[in-house]
Amino acid sequence: MKDIVLYPSERIDDLLTHDLRIIQSDEVFSFSLDAVLLARFCSIPARGRLLDLCSGNGVIPLLLSTRSKLPITGVEIQPRLADMARRSVKLNHLEGRITIVEQDLRTYQYEVPPGSYDLVTVNPPYLPKKIGMVNQNEYIAAARFEILCTMEEVIAAAARLVKSGGKVAVVHRASRLGELLSVMREYRLEPKRLRMVHPRAGTEANMVLVEAIRDAAPELRVLPPLIVYEGDRYGQELLDVYYGKRSQLQD
Amino acid sequence: MKDIVLYPSERIDDLLTHDLRIIQSDEVFSFSLDAVLLARFCSIPARGRLLDLCSGNGVIPLLLSTRSKLPITGVEIQPRLADMARRSVKLNHLEGRITIVEQDLRTYQYEVPPGSYDLVTVNPPYLPKKIGMVNQNEYIAAARFEILCTMEEVIAAAARLVKSGGKVAVVHRASRLGELLSVMREYRLEPKRLRMVHPRAGTEANMVLVEAIRDAAPELRVLPPLIVYEGDRYGQELLDVYYGKRSQLQD
Repeated sequence: MKDIVLYPSERIDDLLTHDLRIIQSDEVFSFSLDAVLLARFCSIPARGRLLDLCSGNGVIPLLLSTRSKLPITGVEIQPRLADMARRSVKLNHLEGRITIVEQDLRTYQYEVPPGSYDLVTVNPPYLPKKIGMVNQNEYIAAARFEILCTMEEVIAAAARLVKSGGKVAVVHRASRLGELLSVMREYRLEPKRLRMVHPRAGTEANMVLVEAIRDAAPELRVLPPLIVYEGDRYGQELLDVYYGKRSQLQD
Repeated sequence: MKDIVLYPSERIDDLLTHDLRIIQSDEVFSFSLDAVLLARFCSIPARGRLLDLCSGNGVIPLLLSTRSKLPITGVEIQPRLADMARRSVKLNHLEGRITIVEQDLRTYQYEVPPGSYDLVTVNPPYLPKKIGMVNQNEYIAAARFEILCTMEEVIAAAARLVKSGGKVAVVHRASRLGELLSVMREYRLEPKRLRMVHPRAGTEANMVLVEAIRDAAPELRVLPPLIVYEGDRYGQELLDVYYGKRSQLQD
């Protein structure tokens, strides 16, 4: 602990699983439920290397380390966030397993050989650049809006970086599902497993989890919907997923 | 009744709403739940004309007639089915409102001006041509497999026949959702409303309802899932939809 620097506004949160802790800041970056669901939803390969794009403060690499002993790379373009992620990796003594690369995914995809990864996860910015970008600091804005990369750039990079037969798992706004599935298919990422996330029973979905396989034949499995809240609190199923007690999100 | 001819294997079934009846035959064509759900799911325009492609025995035009007084056209390629549909229209005294056209949708799309319709519905064949086509009679095979038209041909025809801003509603296998959404978007049909249909709570979806708007901006609403069975029988929500008691499937 004495090696880990905390900057103003930063705090250390408990990731509530495997004693993991993470450096967060409401002024810079705090992970959301979406990232946790993606880290639980994705299929973990038996061998190879894992990659997380738009890695933010590294929450997905940290969570993936509880499900796999394979090497994990997180790519984050913003220096402040990449630094937070690196300090969290160190805080959890995971330097030997998680590497944080501070780089633009649009250039990173050309720095390693195509098909270098067996699984790529990404929780990208959800919203097109134009809408409601007022009054946001640069970190929050870049995490929320397609300022530093578009959906198509993210999918193109993932498609290049994953090997044929490898998997790409994405969480996105349900409202963008049409675009997401068609862009994935344009880049030879065939959607194979999908789960809608509804805030409550009887409400519209606000989020969707999609896993595609590079170069696969079309045949999509649509899993049972995940309902987040029961009354005022997380429902039991969500809690089980959150704490990693259940594997029914996976195959 | 005395004008309506019934051929061997045909029977008259009750459509269970508005005293509608329909001629069916298990050897030729019987409608499924899918068609009923689509007829309830689609948004009915305030004015204009409605079109149903792959109309089979005309179940969707008949059901649409309970929701709209607008003129409805059903296009069916198989002479035997088009004839069944016409006799059902007559049986229900709907000749003034429903027209059944016996024609290939791939040629019909060029016989009327582009953008002639305000709503197009279609319950197309679900399965690619190659799989499991053995031991089927020609009628059943054509309803089930993409023998007489492919998904892309259906969507291309619908996109040409619907006007800009008009709606195209499709029911399909959930397993083909990726293809469906991307083909729709290729033909400028932007998916705007989607509902997954799960046989039971906790099971994967087997069917999906999608409504697109021609030339619209992307922004998809994912409605609450529809669960078909509770125990051994249809659930209350499904029954309400089936009997047309509920409009929550619509906007």
